[in-house]
Parts: sequence; C-alpha cells; structure tokens
Amino acid sequence: MKLEILTFGNELLSGLRTNSHLAFLGEELSRRGLHLQRNVVVGDEETAIRREFLASWERAEIVVTTGGLGATSDDVTRETIARALKLDLVYDANIEKDLEAFFRGQGKEMPEIVRKLAYRPEGADLLSNRIGTTPGLWLERDGKILIMLPGRSSEMHTIFHEQVLPRLRAKDLVAEEEYVQVRTAGLEETFVFEKIQPLLDLVPGIAVASSPHAGMVDLRLRSANAELSHKQLEGVGFQIARRLGDDFVCFGHRSLEQIVCDLLLERDRTLAVAESCTGGLLASRLTDVAGASEFFLGGVVCYTNDAKIQLLGIPETLINQHGAVSAEVAVAMAGGVGESLGSDYALSVTGFAGPTGGTEENPVGTVYLGLATRDGSWTRKVHFTGERMHVRRKAATALLDWLRRTLMKNEVAQPAENLAEG
Amino acid sequence: MKLEILTFGNELLSGLRTNSHLAFLGEELSRRGLHLQRNVVVGDEETAIRREFLASWERAEIVVTTGGLGATSDDVTRETIARALKLDLVYDANIEKDLEAFFRGQGKEMPEIVRKLAYRPEGADLLSNRIGTTPGLWLERDGKILIMLPGRSSEMHTIFHEQVLPRLRAKDLVAEEEYVQVRTAGLEETFVFEKIQPLLDLVPGIAVASSPHAGMVDLRLRSANAELSHKQLEGVGFQIARRLGDDFVCFGHRSLEQIVCDLLLERDRTLAVAESCTGGLLASRLTDVAGASEFFLGGVVCYTNDAKIQLLGIPETLINQHGAVSAEVAVAMAGGVGESLGSDYALSVTGFAGPTGGTEENPVGTVYLGLATRDGSWTRKVHFTGERMHVRRKAATALLDWLRRTLMKNEVAQPAENLAEG
Repeated sequence: MKLEILTFGNELLSGLRTNSHLAFLGEELSRRGLHLQRNVVVGDEETAIRREFLASWERAEIVVTTGGLGATSDDVTRETIARALKLDLVYDANIEKDLEAFFRGQGKEMPEIVRKLAYRPEGADLLSNRIGTTPGLWLERDGKILIMLPGRSSEMHTIFHEQVLPRLRAKDLVAEEEYVQVRTAGLEETFVFEKIQPLLDLVPGIAVASSPHAGMVDLRLRSANAELSHKQLEGVGFQIARRLGDDFVCFGHRSLEQIVCDLLLERDRTLAVAESCTGGLLASRLTDVAGASEFFLGGVVCYTNDAKIQLLGIPETLINQHGAVSAEVAVAMAGGVGESLGSDYALSVTGFAGPTGGTEENPVGTVYLGLATRDGSWTRKVHFTGERMHVRRKAATALLDWLRRTLMKNEVAQPAENLAEG
Repeated sequence: MKLEILTFGNELLSGLRTNSHLAFLGEELSRRGLHLQRNVVVGDEETAIRREFLASWERAEIVVTTGGLGATSDDVTRETIARALKLDLVYDANIEKDLEAFFRGQGKEMPEIVRKLAYRPEGADLLSNRIGTTPGLWLERDGKILIMLPGRSSEMHTIFHEQVLPRLRAKDLVAEEEYVQVRTAGLEETFVFEKIQPLLDLVPGIAVASSPHAGMVDLRLRSANAELSHKQLEGVGFQIARRLGDDFVCFGHRSLEQIVCDLLLERDRTLAVAESCTGGLLASRLTDVAGASEFFLGGVVCYTNDAKIQLLGIPETLINQHGAVSAEVAVAMAGGVGESLGSDYALSVTGFAGPTGGTEENPVGTVYLGLATRDGSWTRKVHFTGERMHVRRKAATALLDWLRRTLMKNEVAQPAENLAEG
C-alpha cells in the first residue's frame, strides 16, 4: 500500500507551528503496518495544493491531507481538492445542525463565517468531529482513498482514532505492529551502535532506524525486504537488549517516566522530588503519567537559596560553605524533601543550566544529582552539553534513569552505578 | 528566491521523531525574508533521496537537506547526493583531526565507524560542528546553493546559527524580518477572526496565517503580493492589537512566560507557585526563561492531600470540607506558598486533568485557578476540553495570562476579570 501525507499550512513553512501531524500519523499508521512513503508540506495556496495533491493522487493508493479545512479565509483545501477531482461541493444540513449544537453547548452563538463548513465534496463521507467545529472527509474514488483531516492536533487525533481507524480496519488495511522498538538510555547513539553493530551484521535484511532524544536512543527494527517475521525481529530485539544490559530500557513505546511509575507501583514505593535547575520539569514529566498520584507525593522547586532553606530546611551554612550547586546541597535536598513528605525515594537536582552562571570548577552544564532512600543518600556529578533547555531535559532524564536502574537492581538500598552523560 | 527543504529520515515517517527541523528552519529563514516554498520528508533510502533531491534542485535556488549525514549504516545522504551531482567524495584529513579531538575532549576513543565522516563531496565547504561529530556541508553549483545539515537538532541549530547564517548574510540573501506577528491569549481562533475580520477586509493584499496553541492564538501578517511595506503591516498589527484589547499579548515571538517575567522584573515583584494538577508544568515553563531566578522564588507541587498539608500548611479540615479540587483549596494554596516564600504574587491550580477523577459538579477538565497578592486572594473556575496533557497546558497558560493581565492593569491589587477558557 503506497501512502503519502500532504500537510497544508503557511504556519508550518514559516515555523509558526511544528508539523506534529507527520509524527502522529506516521506512528499510528506504521505501528499497524501501513508505512508512509512521503510527506510534503506546502502553504495554503491553491496552485501548490493542486499540484501536490495531483502528484500524490497519481502515485499513492492512500492520500491523507491535513489542514486548510477550517472556516477562516486562508482555508482552501476543501475547495481546491474538490476542483482538482472535478467534484461539486454540496450543502449538508446535518453538518450545520452539528455546528450549531457545538456552539450552543459552549453557551456561544455560532459565528457566521463557520457556515462554510457545512459544504462537502459530492460523494465524500463526513468524519464527524466530537470536540471541535471542523469535520474530516473520507472519499473513495478510482480504487483510491482520500482522507482529509483538520489541522488542529487535538481534533485531528480524535477524528483519526474514532473515525479513520475503524474504517481502515473494516477494509483490512491495518494490522498488528510490524516493527520492534528497543528503547535505550545512558549511551550516546554512536556507542549504542558500536555495541550492537556486530550483532546486526549477523542478521542480513534487518533495517534499523535510530532516534536520539535527550539522553535516550530509540532503535526501531524492521525487515528491509519483508523476509524476517515479527518473531525473528523480536528475537533480534532480545539479543540487542541482552547486549545492552542495564542500558536497555524497554521494548515498545513506554516513556521512562511511565516505566519508573510502573516500577514504583509494583514495589509499592513512593517518590518525592526537589528541583533547582530543572525548575519543575522532573515533577511535570512524572505527573504527565495518568495515575501518578498513586506514588508521587509531591515536589519542591527551590529555585533560590531562600526557598531551599524555607521549603526544605537546608542549613544556610551548608549552602554558604559549599555553594548551592554542590554534592552536599544535592544530598541535603533529596534528604530534605524525602523526610518532609515521608517518601521511600527522593530525587534532587542542582546545577548550572546556563546560559550564565557556573564557576571554574562547575562550568555551565554541570549538574549534581541526588538520590535518597530510607537507607542513605547518594550523589553524582554529571556534565551535559548543549543549551539551557537541553541541559534541563537531560538532567531530568538522567534522574529518572538513575531511579529506574536502582529500582531494577533491588528494592531499596544502593543506587545503580552507571549513569547517562553527554 | 525559491527555497525548499528536504528532510531525510525513516524515523520521521514512522513517527519515532517529530520533524522539528521544518519549524526551526522555517522560522529562522522566514523572519529574515527567505520564504520556504516546500518541505518534503522521505526515508533514508537512495532512490527516494535521489528523486526528491533532483526534483528540488531543478526547481529551487536554495536547497537545504537535513539528516542522513551521520556515521551509522542508514546514513546515505552524503553519498547519494554526491552521486546525483556526479561529484566524487574526497578524504579530508582536517575533518578526521577534528573528530579525534572531539572524542578526546570527552575522554573517549573515536569509534571506528565515525571515520566515514571524514569524506566530503568535491567542491563542498565544511560547516564545522562545535558540539557534535557530524559536520554540515555547503556547496555552490550552477548558480544554486545546497546546504546539507545533520539531523540531530542541537547540532543542526548550532551549525545553522554559527555557519549558515553568516554565509547567507555575506551573500545578501537574508534581510530584516518581513512579517508582523501578533500574539493573542484568551480567545479561541474563531472568535479572534470574528473580532478582526472586518478590519482585515479593509486591507486588500494582506495574508494572515494563524496558529492556535494551548489557549493562545498567533497571527502572522504578511503582504500577499509584496505591495504592503513592513511599516504598513505594522500599522495593521497595531490596529488589530487595539481591537483585541486585553486579549492582545505582544508583537513578535516572546513567550507568555517571558512576558510575565519581564513584567515582574520591571515592577521588581516576585512570584511563587503551588501546583496540583499541572504537576510542575507551570514552574517548568517559568524557569525555561533564563534569568527566572531574579523573580521566581520557587514552587510546590502538592500532588496529594498530604503534600498540601505538609508543604503548604493547608488545614486538613478545609480539604475534607470542600474537596481538594475547590475554590477554597485553590485560594489556600496560593496564600500558603506566597506566605511561606514571602512572594509578592502567588499562583495556584487544582483540578481534574483526567482521564479519571472528577465529580458531577466538577467533571474532568474542571480547574480552579488561584491568585494571591499582598492585598488578597482570588479564584476562578475554568473548564478545559481535551486530553490530560491539553488540560494541563491550557491551565498553565491561563494562569500565566491571568497574571499578565493583572500586572498590566496595576502594580498590585485586583486581578483582571477576563480569562481564557476553552
């Protein structure tokens, strides 16, 4: 099945918005065996939309478009593609009724410009939008399928799951996952491959895509020529996992925070955090996980010395003696928050995220991580490269990874040795 | 100038990684007057890379590629494009020296597979990579420019700013910003247009791209046919701002947290936060701003009732009487953290982000916001649609926007009335 995605939107070409549609659709479709060949992004401009649509429609069997279906004057996708396919736009009273009901539900009157959404290309089915105003469209023609989705992510995702997937399933176009994903932490991409390349060299026909992100590397294994079965791919995945040892995180798509969450729940342990340079990022990632309240007791963002003293009871003399960015303060932060909230584990971080700050001994990028259990406290000094945002992200990842390794090794006690850097 | 971007990477088509390159390059180039016409994403596959490169090279005057320049076996961009242009790859001893130095600096030995990076297409200039191993390449040929950049974002950004921009400037290809951006908060996209459309109708030749994101809407004004001057665009921007009133946030690219930061610094005021359902997201956004330590005293993530009692001294009876998600607890949280850290302003949030939780009176999506100043405390009940992540993001945005409106109105005292919803 040849599949292409056309993404329309001036705001994507000028960087006003990130093209997250590609990642969403690519992930959702490829994990079900529908592999995307190509994505083209052009502006909301009739000539470009027409040209790209006709080129994709010629080549692919399924074409998905996103964007340009709304009510504002720059939305021209519906009209342009209908014209390219020589289809009339027909008025649909049911759409207008839905629109009116949507605005009534919000206690608002329907704006006049929205009325244009009540038109659909002749022969197209409506993909109704439960959470917004712009419906999607499904059109079958010449043995091909055209799926038109709105550009707003939350609406596009809802329509995709509720309307598109069931239709693809009914046509037997989607299947079970076809690739095997291996998630790693603690090693740079180059070193991951240095470790596993000899193994990959023994398996002809295996295709590996790798993606590094903030201290982690994901590997996706696929059969290059459809000769390896899913079971064989899993076999290679297991061997890679064994070769990677502690640097192997999981198969599949679970996030590091989800894994730490599961490990804490399994062991019935609780967690608290004290953050300086990450400023709430670690707590935010943990509470991204639905159900975090089962194990996450809370956290303190002690961005100033005074907050460290007030909220965590760290002695002022300790900060004066060693500096706020020090092993001693990291340990005191973890110990302080753990004691205050009575958690089994406590994580802490203090460092120089940049762009300013830092000392000769602790330049920008230097971060002290702390881990306190009921048995004691530990600290690690790490140096991260990159900008403020990257340093913050990598520090939060390193803390989650340290806790993961510790939880894997034993219930309480000694934290793991190996630690992500870079 | 016709400009196209080709993005190579299997991991982008399978959704393993988001194509953030388009947003970065689109933004950096278009603000300097170089407008992107088209972005194509295909996999790391010779046939596709060759086909898309030759098509773009035929049509555009500047072609930028990202991805596939690394050392792993799926990186084939350098070789494939050299072949398409009938250029040899030549060994460059200087590159190998740089690579060795880079790994030495990290206290590591250079992995053997990295050696392939020491080859560049004949006639191409090296764009050196200060923070990683994969250099970029710059090639001029047939009056066109080819810019090849590595796929890893932090390295791509650094090379772009340090190597690409200076070369584009030297050739007079980049200029001052050409568009005017108007940032709004508190109104849904449809209602923003309902408010400004009559005004836009009076200005022929104006092109508006809009982008909603978590409770805000950005508008980008540009001259559709190059007939409006930058000054005229600014004039329209000013009129839009006046029409929008308090819902106007700023011109340009400043984030809401940056604006709140500036307002607090100007007024020499400090801020503390207490978060329940946003779980650190608000603190994290505030500390994304370099220099946040000047005004941000700290925060508390009180995810459990016990944490609210322990860290903020909220009476247990208050929580039992009204529930943790209530106006009373929101007020007590803001008051508690403000008092504990001695801040001029304190923000708080408690709500049901979902997917589970909620009551008949307060279903999932219900959020109570709190604001405490030295003069008193206020609270607002808001309901947000969408998934857990969206509710959390919109709640953090609504708090920042409430504080912005309050700071704009007067130094301390009464918070602003109008509040973002939806």
